[in-house]
Amino acid sequence: MKSFDPSSMHVRDLHSLLLGAIGPRPIALASTISKEGVPNLSPFSFFNVFSANPPILIFSPARRGADNTTKHTYENIKEVPEVVINIVNYDITHQMVLSSANFEKGINEIEKVGFTSLDSDLIKPKRIKESPVQFECTVNQVIELGDGPAAGNLIFAEVLKIHVHENILNEQNKIDQQKIKLVGRMGGDTYVNAFGDCLYDIKRPNDDNIGFDHLPKDIRLSKILSGNDLALLANESSIPDETDVNEYKLLDLSSLFMQHEENAPLLEIALHNHAKDLISKGNINDAWKTLLAFNN
Amino acid sequence: MKSFDPSSMHVRDLHSLLLGAIGPRPIALASTISKEGVPNLSPFSFFNVFSANPPILIFSPARRGADNTTKHTYENIKEVPEVVINIVNYDITHQMVLSSANFEKGINEIEKVGFTSLDSDLIKPKRIKESPVQFECTVNQVIELGDGPAAGNLIFAEVLKIHVHENILNEQNKIDQQKIKLVGRMGGDTYVNAFGDCLYDIKRPNDDNIGFDHLPKDIRLSKILSGNDLALLANESSIPDETDVNEYKLLDLSSLFMQHEENAPLLEIALHNHAKDLISKGNINDAWKTLLAFNN
Repeated sequence: MKSFDPSSMHVRDLHSLLLGAIGPRPIALASTISKEGVPNLSPFSFFNVFSANPPILIFSPARRGADNTTKHTYENIKEVPEVVINIVNYDITHQMVLSSANFEKGINEIEKVGFTSLDSDLIKPKRIKESPVQFECTVNQVIELGDGPAAGNLIFAEVLKIHVHENILNEQNKIDQQKIKLVGRMGGDTYVNAFGDCLYDIKRPNDDNIGFDHLPKDIRLSKILSGNDLALLANESSIPDETDVNEYKLLDLSSLFMQHEENAPLLEIALHNHAKDLISKGNINDAWKTLLAFNN
Repeated sequence: MKSFDPSSMHVRDLHSLLLGAIGPRPIALASTISKEGVPNLSPFSFFNVFSANPPILIFSPARRGADNTTKHTYENIKEVPEVVINIVNYDITHQMVLSSANFEKGINEIEKVGFTSLDSDLIKPKRIKESPVQFECTVNQVIELGDGPAAGNLIFAEVLKIHVHENILNEQNKIDQQKIKLVGRMGGDTYVNAFGDCLYDIKRPNDDNIGFDHLPKDIRLSKILSGNDLALLANESSIPDETDVNEYKLLDLSSLFMQHEENAPLLEIALHNHAKDLISKGNINDAWKTLLAFNN
């Protein structure tokens, strides 16, 4: 393990370490407007949802690390405390990246990066038609976290209205996680596609799970089962009883037991490998019976 | 487009819509301690980095939507304002999920989910040895965003010390985005693996890019080039000159021109398809020459 003390690090290195460790980060494509009415569009990955009631999104147009200047998004919000947070998906990734260029103030960045602007219903900044979800927000608080280079500026955006492309909604008005094709931000120049084979589901855990402390020691110390495997075993509410284990041993494990009849260590390895395979297929109950059969 | 008014929605539906739209979200596995010294461990995806100077991470142990109760993490931080934010990667995903079960207060959740605890250098809460990056933090502010069900509670965590597994660091002490194998949170029960083929790099844009407003109209209105394709064309600082285009037309495009000699619309389609292919291979300059050859 290597340890780092932020107070003795160059801000650039600390920034890089934080961005490399904390990911994947969602991307807010923030549309703001100056008091003269010039639109601005910029992406921010210091962003997330923090509350549903009230619905609050927070993002940070931080001070620039190189020269400690502030960004147009921040300046606009101080002038007109409103923002449309447009969500970024795969289809608009490169236009979003282009919008992060340092355009001069006064340039209409929505036109510059080729998006179609739509009027908002309740606020002055424009929505981006191509974005799959557009949040019209009022800014009800700004917190400056410092005044040096790379200091964050928290923008508290309260959601007033939400516009969603219909083709990403399912029948229950929920957003289909495959259809929205979200993209996230990682460290360095790296992005992540949050769709396709990159996605998978994990059910909520059982509140009455037995926990690692009730795993038998020979299972807990297995050289074959990983922490993920053990967690799925520990998530069960109860362990199969001796009758079930014996029945499973006779019907499903007899060939394994015969194969390693005279070699207990090899039998244990074979059973743990078999259980690992069952776990990977989501069959936790049979994995338990396989593991318990060893000492039965 | 379908529009939603948060003030007239059930909090549960609004929560679900926000979580389905804002992702992928990084995961903080927060280790806290009660004033009696009982450790608590829980994952939160209302989390991100918001500033490098000072280094501030924010997460929200929100009030429960079902019964408006507060979480042990929040209660502990009110008692002992310190937290270790442990980063979650693929190898500890299922143990992290298990730690989100509603264990009774007083249970040592670090043991319950099978992690190894390590003493922190500067604060009381324990670190999780299995986590690839551990941030020791002092909590210097807590903001309650509301007092109803699903109201967020912002925990401002200032990073005092960072511990990183050496095997994920490269020679420049940066975190290798493939080796850390980060995992993120999506809507519903969905997670994302932020490594392997899911990752890709996009360079910062050129600040002196020509922009969409300087794309010739026939290119801008192409039925073949996508917004992503056009953004990569618009990101160039300049367009190839006539001499370069003519040379490329003679040497590389002659067979295409001969093939569609008497059919301009088909020639245009063929050139746009050829350009799209070049863009997908990262060869933006030749794509430009291909597109400009049509009217040359």
